[in-house]
Amino acid sequence: MVKLVVAYGHPEDPAAFDRHYADTHRPLAQKIPNLRRFEAGKVLGAADGSAAPYHFIAELWFEDLEELQASMQSPEGQAAGADVGTFATGGATLMIAEA
Amino acid sequence: MVKLVVAYGHPEDPAAFDRHYADTHRPLAQKIPNLRRFEAGKVLGAADGSAAPYHFIAELWFEDLEELQASMQSPEGQAAGADVGTFATGGATLMIAEA
Repeated sequence: MVKLVVAYGHPEDPAAFDRHYADTHRPLAQKIPNLRRFEAGKVLGAADGSAAPYHFIAELWFEDLEELQASMQSPEGQAAGADVGTFATGGATLMIAEA
Repeated sequence: MVKLVVAYGHPEDPAAFDRHYADTHRPLAQKIPNLRRFEAGKVLGAADGSAAPYHFIAELWFEDLEELQASMQSPEGQAAGADVGTFATGGATLMIAEA
């Protein structure tokens, strides 16, 4: 398995980010074809109590790298990707990792 | 559930890092009490093909924040934490997130 890790930087308006994520982005992400598992949640802080570099982390698991890439290029993947630009005011780091 | 996300920066010697992780650190991490799930893998790159900010990401799931904290303060948690300093030459960002 491989996963797409989306690490969102701290947004200008965290409450607006959280609302948009729950109401709009999560449903879009969950429509991506061949998504094997999806997890997303707020970063509560760094383990040492300092500020964490990210506000929110989402992970999308796929069978393999080919399937991840095909899924992200599908209309549903493109729609979810385009939506990120509308609410991720703190930026988003997208990484592909072994899982 | 909550999880501890450990994002390792690029080490000076990636092959030595990978060996130490597989042979020493993974077994130490898996001994941490009340660990509900453990996943760890190499970051293959950023989704846009650029260099990712991390070399390796591990995640440790626990029932709740209290259990995570108690587990990390146990002798096994302390041993795994102390080991990080011996091989994570690119640093390690430890975050606690909702899961």
